[in-house]
Amino acid sequence: MIKKLAITGGTHGNELTGVYLVKKWQKSPKLVERSSFITVTQLMNQQAIKEVRRYIDHDLNRSFGLSALADKTLDSYEAKLAKELNGLLGKKGGCNPNVDFIVDLHTTTSNMGLSIVVSNESVTTWRAIAYLCQMQPKLKVYRWRGDIENSFVDSIAPHGFAIEVGAVPQGVLRADLFLETEALVYHLLDFVEKENQGEILALTDELEVYEHEKLLDYPRDEQGDIVAMVHQERQGRDFTLIEQGEPLFLTLENQTITYEGDPRYTLFVNESAYYEKGFAMTLAQKVKVVIKY
Amino acid sequence: MIKKLAITGGTHGNELTGVYLVKKWQKSPKLVERSSFITVTQLMNQQAIKEVRRYIDHDLNRSFGLSALADKTLDSYEAKLAKELNGLLGKKGGCNPNVDFIVDLHTTTSNMGLSIVVSNESVTTWRAIAYLCQMQPKLKVYRWRGDIENSFVDSIAPHGFAIEVGAVPQGVLRADLFLETEALVYHLLDFVEKENQGEILALTDELEVYEHEKLLDYPRDEQGDIVAMVHQERQGRDFTLIEQGEPLFLTLENQTITYEGDPRYTLFVNESAYYEKGFAMTLAQKVKVVIKY
Repeated sequence: MIKKLAITGGTHGNELTGVYLVKKWQKSPKLVERSSFITVTQLMNQQAIKEVRRYIDHDLNRSFGLSALADKTLDSYEAKLAKELNGLLGKKGGCNPNVDFIVDLHTTTSNMGLSIVVSNESVTTWRAIAYLCQMQPKLKVYRWRGDIENSFVDSIAPHGFAIEVGAVPQGVLRADLFLETEALVYHLLDFVEKENQGEILALTDELEVYEHEKLLDYPRDEQGDIVAMVHQERQGRDFTLIEQGEPLFLTLENQTITYEGDPRYTLFVNESAYYEKGFAMTLAQKVKVVIKY
Repeated sequence: MIKKLAITGGTHGNELTGVYLVKKWQKSPKLVERSSFITVTQLMNQQAIKEVRRYIDHDLNRSFGLSALADKTLDSYEAKLAKELNGLLGKKGGCNPNVDFIVDLHTTTSNMGLSIVVSNESVTTWRAIAYLCQMQPKLKVYRWRGDIENSFVDSIAPHGFAIEVGAVPQGVLRADLFLETEALVYHLLDFVEKENQGEILALTDELEVYEHEKLLDYPRDEQGDIVAMVHQERQGRDFTLIEQGEPLFLTLENQTITYEGDPRYTLFVNESAYYEKGFAMTLAQKVKVVIKY
């Protein structure tokens, strides 16, 4: 039973779709009200939203690791904010969560279309995703499997995921992607309402998922500056297979660097915020995930 | 006779095409060397480039007004930088310019394709543009006619313009637009070389130009926050006619606001950096400009 669901926007202050959807729902809360649970909406990084920046000191969406939340010596803007938000929407790992489900709204400069980034293994999370895929067949699912502790916003609640839509530049609202994100959130609310009311939902027990394998960085010089760009033939080709020998990067001297490796799907191709994180794209495999009900 | 030409990049620190083209040419200066004139390359706002931000205190590309350059009390980061750059590449309005021609490299999140923004009326400037349009037929020309003093970077030299390419998000390099910008700069260098050497160029004396008429802001609330987005049917339609009654904005409540006015071309549609400047797009008329030789 989901008693409380949080819709969070502006975790990154320059990703406007989530910011303005949350503003819309704070003005018209009836749109996200349902009879069987409480919906809360939260603007996450208000200073970054004001400055139309991703973050002030460091990435809020990498600030919800358990050890960071417990470390009282961390006093950056986002470290303090993460603790505050964990108090409000967490607490992470606790037995009495304030919120049962978090959907965190993001955008990307990559051509990710309408997609979900999931790193939660709960059955409720996966049933929700199965429902959304049924309602919106073009929705794609990326399962994050980083080698570090999950420190995303949605990790502080028992269930949840992030919605990523793109391509949209930072600091820009695109009406089409705004409408698609909005519709997807309403489907999620409908799902929770139906589940709570015990409605029997005919959901698939097997989902096609893009499973994270590794991150691929840009070629860089000794100072760490990039010396190549995503090749023009790879640009925009998220959720698309890349095979041995296909163009991957173009150096600033206009030389093509090809892909060497087994066939993989490329995701988050040329995302603006990931230049500093040190990756040009994600490589993923398409797998079937069996949902155990 | 052009004795010295400057290629400037990173006037806005998050517009990476110009930044990395200038870095490329600083590493391989022979690429922009020509026999009859000197080419200099300049990274303009180095602190903003480092922080991948448009500017630190205010927009450098609005900081080259004569009165601002003369005002010694202005001591913001960009005000001081503008004076320094004017000393290096100017001086604006002076009789002995250090540089005869400035081409300033920009990108935009709008779908402006490959375009020139010109606010200089010199014959040399317009002949250069005519040559570029001949070499690259898809190039479009936007003549800026603001009601304020021209304070763009290129205004400090006797001749020049800005190149704008898009759509590309801030903080992103797109290989295709990088290559197109590079090729256009080489055409410009060829033009100057030919002119200097007295080659007879068969250039058109009439150019099709998008003439600035006015700026159109987003609908906003009393606090100045936007309450509508560019309508999904107008998104990406730069250099495209809008007519009476066509969809213009979509409010956050999903209501369409239509365009009311005479047919005009829309430019810089939904450019990220212009949300704070207070406009959603530019309205322009297509006119013929006669170049007097």
